[in-house]
Amino acid sequence: MTNPIDRVVIVGGTHGNEWTGIYLLKKFEQLPQRIQRSSFRTEILLANPKAFAANRRYLDRDLNRSFSPLDLQDDLAGYENLRAREIYQRLAAVARASVNLILDLHSTTANMGVTLIADSTDAFYPRLAAAIVARYPSVRFYCSAHAGRNQDSLRRLGDYGLCLEVGPVAPGLLDAALLQQTEAIVSAILDYLEQYNQGNFQDGSPEAFVTVYRYLKAIDYPRSPTGELLAMIHPRLQGQDYHPLYPGDPIFLTFDDREICYEGEAIVYPVFINEAAYYEKGIAMCLTEKQQVQF
Amino acid sequence: MTNPIDRVVIVGGTHGNEWTGIYLLKKFEQLPQRIQRSSFRTEILLANPKAFAANRRYLDRDLNRSFSPLDLQDDLAGYENLRAREIYQRLAAVARASVNLILDLHSTTANMGVTLIADSTDAFYPRLAAAIVARYPSVRFYCSAHAGRNQDSLRRLGDYGLCLEVGPVAPGLLDAALLQQTEAIVSAILDYLEQYNQGNFQDGSPEAFVTVYRYLKAIDYPRSPTGELLAMIHPRLQGQDYHPLYPGDPIFLTFDDREICYEGEAIVYPVFINEAAYYEKGIAMCLTEKQQVQF
Repeated sequence: MTNPIDRVVIVGGTHGNEWTGIYLLKKFEQLPQRIQRSSFRTEILLANPKAFAANRRYLDRDLNRSFSPLDLQDDLAGYENLRAREIYQRLAAVARASVNLILDLHSTTANMGVTLIADSTDAFYPRLAAAIVARYPSVRFYCSAHAGRNQDSLRRLGDYGLCLEVGPVAPGLLDAALLQQTEAIVSAILDYLEQYNQGNFQDGSPEAFVTVYRYLKAIDYPRSPTGELLAMIHPRLQGQDYHPLYPGDPIFLTFDDREICYEGEAIVYPVFINEAAYYEKGIAMCLTEKQQVQF
Repeated sequence: MTNPIDRVVIVGGTHGNEWTGIYLLKKFEQLPQRIQRSSFRTEILLANPKAFAANRRYLDRDLNRSFSPLDLQDDLAGYENLRAREIYQRLAAVARASVNLILDLHSTTANMGVTLIADSTDAFYPRLAAAIVARYPSVRFYCSAHAGRNQDSLRRLGDYGLCLEVGPVAPGLLDAALLQQTEAIVSAILDYLEQYNQGNFQDGSPEAFVTVYRYLKAIDYPRSPTGELLAMIHPRLQGQDYHPLYPGDPIFLTFDDREICYEGEAIVYPVFINEAAYYEKGIAMCLTEKQQVQF
């Protein structure tokens, strides 16, 4: 935990149609001073250039599910498998020479604002999140340690891995306000890492706690035996990411106008509600529990 | 104008990733009584099933730009060209037997609410629009007669052709509230046609005028000589479809943070602001003028 971080890799376009991160990389390429700090080196990586050229999430398979150790060792065909091995080799070379952090920039059609995602329960992440939230109170902190994202995501290749998820924004377009917010948060993260390297951990400061939304489980849309959708996100749930969902609240509306309600026994906080790319993954939303973390 | 309409074709999925219309067709298939009226026959048509299966706007070319007389006569290869000729033959058979109206259901990432689009200045359309607006005051009426859409769109094949455009909604997902609104407006249009067939044109009623937004021109994003984007929709313009744009108002924000302003001399009303599918067409927004039509 006390090792300074000496390399930061900002990744965009892990999904080729998530333009916010991709155009932010282009911007940083033109204005590199914006991501330079004195205590570490920052580099950028456009992860899936062919999917970006095609304006698609991926060509053959989701790149951000292609980094499991097994997949990386296999000689799998397909563009994303090839690209995953290329990225692995590049980042492994970085890793041998440094302690690095990967910051992967994503966007979502869900109303998640700016969300910091960590796949680990290491105290490094809530500390960082607390510092960011202190500067930008609307930022949320989501822990997906139990969602398996530390098994196969690009960011798992870093000594530290963070995802920045912003929305709502449709794939294949730019929302300037969201791009500006993302840029500000990236800058705040780099500022924090600079402080971190200088040993300023802010223990005992008023930011020594943070709210975390912890992944519990994903739930799918109601479907026919052949997988066809039978319902939509209920209009009262649409856009309500991070709001409490109570037992009995409507979550789906079927095409014959029936309401389907949440049958859990505890209050939960849904995220990734109606993410376009998750229909094919069988995910209508992810349920989380809300907790305070102290450190 | 006094010929009754005896066939209505409700079309969805002309763009395969615009799910609102597609799932509304599925719903009508299950609940056909919702689109039946006594004075005409209603049928439904999923225009681009292969693009829907692939969850893409189109496979080889935009189907809704594939219906020019020249294209239909040619023996062009490509799935959409083939499909355009199939649809043409099916609808031509309908046309020989009846006076028909094509209602094509689309969606957009632009904040256009529910918009009725007509490609003609025929008085049929403002009359219809006035009746719909009287029931649903938030509905807008857009006339694209000067945009060339009556040259190559699917709906031009009808004796009457209407487009229903709803947004904002990302491609490849369902927004239940928008689907419900679309269903209500489709129903209102069918109700109006039933009245129309009975000779109730509402002349002299309080609905004898309507606000129309008339297409003036499309403008593209600032681009490099090789076509790369240099700017985004300005955050102050994002989502402001149908709001007045004054000379000097900012319209774009470049990636080096400069504002680009509207240099026209008159107040205009932009629509299709930041439509994802229009980046490739070189359209950042369409400018319209706002007028009252009396009839």
